Amino acid sequence: MNGLLTDLYELTMAAGYFETGKSSDIATFELTVRRLPKDREYVLVAGLEQAAEYLVNLSFTPDEIEYLRGLPVFGRVSRAFFETLRDFRFTGDVFAVAEGTPMFAGEPVLIVRAPIMEAQIPETYLLAAITFQTLIATKAARVVEAAGGRPVVEFGTRRAHTPEAGVLGARAAYIGGCAGTSNVLAGFRFGIPVFGTAAHSWVMSFPTEMEAFRRLQSLLGEHTVQLIDTYDPIEGARRAAALGKPIWGVRIDSGDFVQVSRQVRTILDQAGLSDAKIMASGDLNEYKIRDLRSAGAAIDAFGVGTELATSADAPCMGTIYKMVELLSGGARRYTLKLSEQKHTLPGAKQVYRFPDHDLLTRSEECHNGADALLKPVIIHGRPVDRLPDAAAARKNAAEWLRRLPGPLEVRRSPQLTALIEETRRNLA
Amino acid sequence: MNGLLTDLYELTMAAGYFETGKSSDIATFELTVRRLPKDREYVLVAGLEQAAEYLVNLSFTPDEIEYLRGLPVFGRVSRAFFETLRDFRFTGDVFAVAEGTPMFAGEPVLIVRAPIMEAQIPETYLLAAITFQTLIATKAARVVEAAGGRPVVEFGTRRAHTPEAGVLGARAAYIGGCAGTSNVLAGFRFGIPVFGTAAHSWVMSFPTEMEAFRRLQSLLGEHTVQLIDTYDPIEGARRAAALGKPIWGVRIDSGDFVQVSRQVRTILDQAGLSDAKIMASGDLNEYKIRDLRSAGAAIDAFGVGTELATSADAPCMGTIYKMVELLSGGARRYTLKLSEQKHTLPGAKQVYRFPDHDLLTRSEECHNGADALLKPVIIHGRPVDRLPDAAAARKNAAEWLRRLPGPLEVRRSPQLTALIEETRRNLA
Repeated sequence: MNGLLTDLYELTMAAGYFETGKSSDIATFELTVRRLPKDREYVLVAGLEQAAEYLVNLSFTPDEIEYLRGLPVFGRVSRAFFETLRDFRFTGDVFAVAEGTPMFAGEPVLIVRAPIMEAQIPETYLLAAITFQTLIATKAARVVEAAGGRPVVEFGTRRAHTPEAGVLGARAAYIGGCAGTSNVLAGFRFGIPVFGTAAHSWVMSFPTEMEAFRRLQSLLGEHTVQLIDTYDPIEGARRAAALGKPIWGVRIDSGDFVQVSRQVRTILDQAGLSDAKIMASGDLNEYKIRDLRSAGAAIDAFGVGTELATSADAPCMGTIYKMVELLSGGARRYTLKLSEQKHTLPGAKQVYRFPDHDLLTRSEECHNGADALLKPVIIHGRPVDRLPDAAAARKNAAEWLRRLPGPLEVRRSPQLTALIEETRRNLA
Repeated sequence: MNGLLTDLYELTMAAGYFETGKSSDIATFELTVRRLPKDREYVLVAGLEQAAEYLVNLSFTPDEIEYLRGLPVFGRVSRAFFETLRDFRFTGDVFAVAEGTPMFAGEPVLIVRAPIMEAQIPETYLLAAITFQTLIATKAARVVEAAGGRPVVEFGTRRAHTPEAGVLGARAAYIGGCAGTSNVLAGFRFGIPVFGTAAHSWVMSFPTEMEAFRRLQSLLGEHTVQLIDTYDPIEGARRAAALGKPIWGVRIDSGDFVQVSRQVRTILDQAGLSDAKIMASGDLNEYKIRDLRSAGAAIDAFGVGTELATSADAPCMGTIYKMVELLSGGARRYTLKLSEQKHTLPGAKQVYRFPDHDLLTRSEECHNGADALLKPVIIHGRPVDRLPDAAAARKNAAEWLRRLPGPLEVRRSPQLTALIEETRRNLA
């Protein structure tokens, strides 16, 4: 499954490794946060569950192999390579930081050690899977923090980069601290709480707003959230209030949230509905939520869509997947690239987290009194254990964010520094 | 399939329509570009093929229905509604503009007319499917224009918002004018040309760069693209040049592209390789490509990844899906919302394109001498015809972009204006 969901060069290189007799070389690749996204002090890692599922199921169908054979770039490649693809399975090892862990620039978050073809082909998929969910979990944590304890529901599937990205974005947003999502498939697949009641079309489908509200209330009872801004939010609030209980609350999706929410609060309170909540949605983000709170808006819950589902102010980040060592014919060689502003560090690594800093070390070092963040996830192609689910990752994130004093400095161990210097010397 | 890939409120509303006896009401919804993305003068519509596939296959599995029944929000909903979901199929009509058509703010690009439940549930998926590919096709057209005839290859799957978004983004980028993609699955599924040869890991996997280059050349022959910047791009260029033909060219992925590309050009020319091309990749976008061309960089082809695959400077756009009319119990009612800065226009529409402007009209108007852009795609739940494929959409886009004098003004017909005024009056 998903064998072709990669960049062509992963497959031409795989053919090359095969044809040059490197099939049994064991390569170690690291997926590293090269640079933090714009305006971020950390990233919350997410997407590991999807990355691991991909590796465990990675394979090629006969049709896919036939397609490859027909590409001109494979013209000189032997039939034996394509036969290898037929039985292709990932048989290597994976180490990764737990989902929900905050990480910093320069830190590896996932390490793959496998026969070189098996380590090379997954590059593209692993980068996309981890990068996207990490961006969204990070954005969610910021929005949730801005909301200061008021629940935030993820509403963004319609603006996500494909419907499927909406599902996985909802998962990541939940890990980042959202109370839930409007995406039903995310609820079904990942056990995430789902929320949602009615849109403007519900109101428009009845001759009067009052009838629409009455019908919704008798359908949903105490789950009723009346959307009050189809025509006029103040009139809408009066109509919702006139219907009394049962009601969860009202939602405002446009207009001046500060002014409107206060007027609506008064209307609800005067109708004896002081328990009824006010939810706001519509082009919200962490900055606007902070402003609304400072300005004294009477908002009890936030629905955040577009900006969260696309991480709109930082829709991309510099993650890389680079070879750090190679065991070939019994000899181990440490690898790096020196490309301008894009150099990499050789050797398999570990990240130890101390209370006030992270220590980037060689993988075999031991440091007492600190957590080793990269832990085995897949060994010899088999999952070590059931991975923590989205709820556990959400808890992990909340604990780290409570515990961390702020962004941590990333130091290098003396052994790692020595390896870097030695490897550079050998290349010169 | 994909029944749960929607927002929960689409399904609670569906239940509400069912329970309030509206199942046979016929609703018309329009998917409209409310606002253009930041820094865009038009959008190139894309994603229709995926939207139509979704509608034709839309259904619910028994497990999914059981999950819904267990949600508290459906506590008062009758068993009959869930039985209806078992046989749920889309039986309505869809009109849409052809993929690759440039459109402007305020214009509908897809219209759904169906029994109200069937028109409501697809809102979320249709918005995500069309919005994402439209963003990427639009970004691609800008990048391709900046490249001024030099081929642009889409390289962005690793930074796309999920691997699947990489596949569909590659499709959209091709529609927008890219020469092809590095995404193999996009090639397999959509017949898009695929490109790619080797990454830094290929070079690092051999003891010397020279050996890596020699091996790649014997593997790929005239398709060889040597990646020359793993250690030092000038040394890399000398090594590639020393190997002579066969070679397609070299790729530079870091450093000062202007200076390095010129030095590399000289090295290749002096080695008698004036046919060998220079490709540049690495954090490129339309602005940087334009600057490189003005500065006289010797670059023959561009690989564009992150910024294209995420439309990084404009990762979202304001598309909406709103009910515009409703046929209920034999009576037709035109619907709109008045929400502040988010109002909508009533009545099913058509867009006529004249040489120097677009005319937004009611759907039943006729205007000679202009193209009606919204054409039937699905009638009674069945595709009217095979949709144009990605290559045809790419051709359509290129023709429109050549023909259009610039952004078109969107005018409203007198009949549409009258309907808007009348509908507003009736609400007041």
